[in-house]
Amino acid sequence: MRGTGSDKPQLRPYVAASAGFASGADSPRDLLARCLAALESWEPRIGAFVSLNIEGARAAAERSSERWRAGRPLSPIDGMPIGVKDVIETVDMPTEMGSPLFAGWQSLKDAASVAALREAGAVIVGKTVTTEFAATEPRGTRNPWDPERTPGGSSSGSAAAVGAGLLSAALGTQVLGSVLRPASFCGCFGFKPSVNALNREGSHDYQSQSCTGVLAASLEDAWQVAYEIAVRVGGDAGHPGLTGPPRMPAASAPRRLVFLKTAAWAHADAGAKQHMDEVLSRFEIAGVDILTAHNDRKVAAVEAAIAEARALSTRINNWEMRWFLKTCRDRDASKISAHALARLQEGEAMTVADYRAVLAERTRIRALYAELAARCEACVTLAAPGPAPVGLNFTGNPEFNIPASLLGTPAVSLPVFEVDAMPVGLQVMGFADDDASTMAIAAWALKQCDDPASERKPADG
Amino acid sequence: MRGTGSDKPQLRPYVAASAGFASGADSPRDLLARCLAALESWEPRIGAFVSLNIEGARAAAERSSERWRAGRPLSPIDGMPIGVKDVIETVDMPTEMGSPLFAGWQSLKDAASVAALREAGAVIVGKTVTTEFAATEPRGTRNPWDPERTPGGSSSGSAAAVGAGLLSAALGTQVLGSVLRPASFCGCFGFKPSVNALNREGSHDYQSQSCTGVLAASLEDAWQVAYEIAVRVGGDAGHPGLTGPPRMPAASAPRRLVFLKTAAWAHADAGAKQHMDEVLSRFEIAGVDILTAHNDRKVAAVEAAIAEARALSTRINNWEMRWFLKTCRDRDASKISAHALARLQEGEAMTVADYRAVLAERTRIRALYAELAARCEACVTLAAPGPAPVGLNFTGNPEFNIPASLLGTPAVSLPVFEVDAMPVGLQVMGFADDDASTMAIAAWALKQCDDPASERKPADG
Repeated sequence: MRGTGSDKPQLRPYVAASAGFASGADSPRDLLARCLAALESWEPRIGAFVSLNIEGARAAAERSSERWRAGRPLSPIDGMPIGVKDVIETVDMPTEMGSPLFAGWQSLKDAASVAALREAGAVIVGKTVTTEFAATEPRGTRNPWDPERTPGGSSSGSAAAVGAGLLSAALGTQVLGSVLRPASFCGCFGFKPSVNALNREGSHDYQSQSCTGVLAASLEDAWQVAYEIAVRVGGDAGHPGLTGPPRMPAASAPRRLVFLKTAAWAHADAGAKQHMDEVLSRFEIAGVDILTAHNDRKVAAVEAAIAEARALSTRINNWEMRWFLKTCRDRDASKISAHALARLQEGEAMTVADYRAVLAERTRIRALYAELAARCEACVTLAAPGPAPVGLNFTGNPEFNIPASLLGTPAVSLPVFEVDAMPVGLQVMGFADDDASTMAIAAWALKQCDDPASERKPADG
Repeated sequence: MRGTGSDKPQLRPYVAASAGFASGADSPRDLLARCLAALESWEPRIGAFVSLNIEGARAAAERSSERWRAGRPLSPIDGMPIGVKDVIETVDMPTEMGSPLFAGWQSLKDAASVAALREAGAVIVGKTVTTEFAATEPRGTRNPWDPERTPGGSSSGSAAAVGAGLLSAALGTQVLGSVLRPASFCGCFGFKPSVNALNREGSHDYQSQSCTGVLAASLEDAWQVAYEIAVRVGGDAGHPGLTGPPRMPAASAPRRLVFLKTAAWAHADAGAKQHMDEVLSRFEIAGVDILTAHNDRKVAAVEAAIAEARALSTRINNWEMRWFLKTCRDRDASKISAHALARLQEGEAMTVADYRAVLAERTRIRALYAELAARCEACVTLAAPGPAPVGLNFTGNPEFNIPASLLGTPAVSLPVFEVDAMPVGLQVMGFADDDASTMAIAAWALKQCDDPASERKPADG
């Protein structure tokens, strides 16, 4: 499991730290100052931000400190230093989408999620680096655990900034694996809610299975950020949005979990697999039945169905990005990446009938997966095939994350494993529109991993 | 029924006119020249446009003319002069949303619908005036039938430009009555498809029951524009989008129609009501059973449910506009209207639980209405309570249009009535995701109204 050496990047949880704000032992102002000191030290090495509004953040933290002292915080995240992935609109900073075609572009408004965070008192520190259009092409951000490695993508800057302790949380988006994979690579918590659970108005991730998610320093912080957004702006227009308690759900022990190997298991790192096997043994010792494709026919059917996840999701995304990428190519083809051009060509080869067919297949697979809810409380697997790969030209393999994206289910990455002195996440996947239960199981799983008392070899190991 | 005096504004149908393009008897270039001549004459009187790209339109019409001559038009609307409501993004013109807060604002991209129209060869002439944020506050456009009267809203410029024959079609949006009401007032055809049927990416109408619609010079033009959008960019992301034949569905006689009086009937103009009664008699003579709340219990239940339509829709919209309007108020409260401020206050008084409750109620009413499909092919009613009211400060009463918006059903306004020398529309409402059938019934209804042979008093009248 993960080590705790003092040389490693340290997370900066907020909700847990806020106990000191009312007494005056600490304040959002002081916490921001510590973040900014860390930022000064880390940012030149990791390049997590594309824009900063330090002055605005200081003023917001000042107001928040006064509210806490007066005993009237606007929410549990009042004063939380937060970053916003640069595909999400902010009235005070440009939204560049990782593309020179939108250099300096101003939306003149806040996205719904950002408006909600401001209403909750959060301190928006800056815009975090995204790959081009939240897709493939990286934009230079480095992993705080090892600057020679990718932080993952597309929420690269959000994960690097939270992983390095520059922020307590940051907004990301995930259409394939853009929240959970970078969370896994950078050693922070990642929460991708149910699809449509957080309002995406003003977020330039237009795809039907894309979702606003949270990179955070603790599970509690991730839940609180999502909750405060949902309670103020709901889900995508017309959807009821994320539901659940106003504070992090208590850990809840499952009776049965499904271990989904997924198609990615075959390529996963041996060390990561060993950790996964060990944690499954721990869960069994704790009295949880583990269902797999080998001992359950329904699970086998789901594994077979989600083996298509990458191909289906890619086709859905290629179609849904087609007109936007075409506008970009028409403006200046030299300013979009070869990846985006190739994706556009694939989208242009599709018809609306092809799109309808893949949507129908997605609906079928979602229904099949939903049936698992009768057999288990959640599914678990790795959040990435291993540690972040070396190099900055490739943001890593999202295959472990695509099933939850295709299925529209909540998914969490817990930074509990370590391989080659790099973090690797344990993934908990739940059932659509039951985000709170997924969080409760994740909290339980985290406890199993953290608790030294449970650090013992399984009897049959 | 409607007169045909030569002093009246004349519509400029396109698909019907395109027969001459291949032979060289006419061309998109010449048709555009006629539009631009009309524009020069009309625009100073009606103020339908906020931006024009005449040079771009001429170049596009030139290329289209060559394609028709070569026998290779990109679509039946290749060369069609089209306007785009100024809440929908265009790469070549600002998108100002009827607000000084967005004066000159550039999206740097085309909305999905606009990208589709360009791919289909359509000629984008300009951006048409919208009320502030496609809501209440008018922006000075006048009715081509009488410049002292409103053109309706919020698709004010689109309806005025099409009604005056400056364009063959224009995109609008409808969340309450913003396509059908202005179509009725300006004497053109209005088509609001099923909700989610046309892709709204890049359209700044964020509400869950809003919908891209078409103002057009003929029913055929309206269908073709919608079809060409849907076949290229589908519906809203994740929805299969508008389906139906690649050419205007043939007129189809219904066996039974429901006459929905709606809550608005009580306030409707006596002349409009008389026209409605007459047309119902014609339909009966043609062998159609007319069901009403008086002779059918299901219809009575639907009437009772949709009596809530305005109150429910208003609450849904107020919530869904809350964060956007708040951003605007925070930027400069003096630059948003009193209407918008009041709407924001109402939105701010709501909780997410209130919103979920109205969504649930909308779902219930949609299910109730859907049951009518077993009893009738479509519903009919007025498209507006009467002719456009005098004055430019009020865009008219949308009450006849709100049911279709709340229900998410397709609806068409046919410019077949005339009251006080002003047009009034007959509305045909169908069932969600069956836009083609609604069009076929509308085509039949139009024929009944146009056909002098059927111009006779009903036996029992």
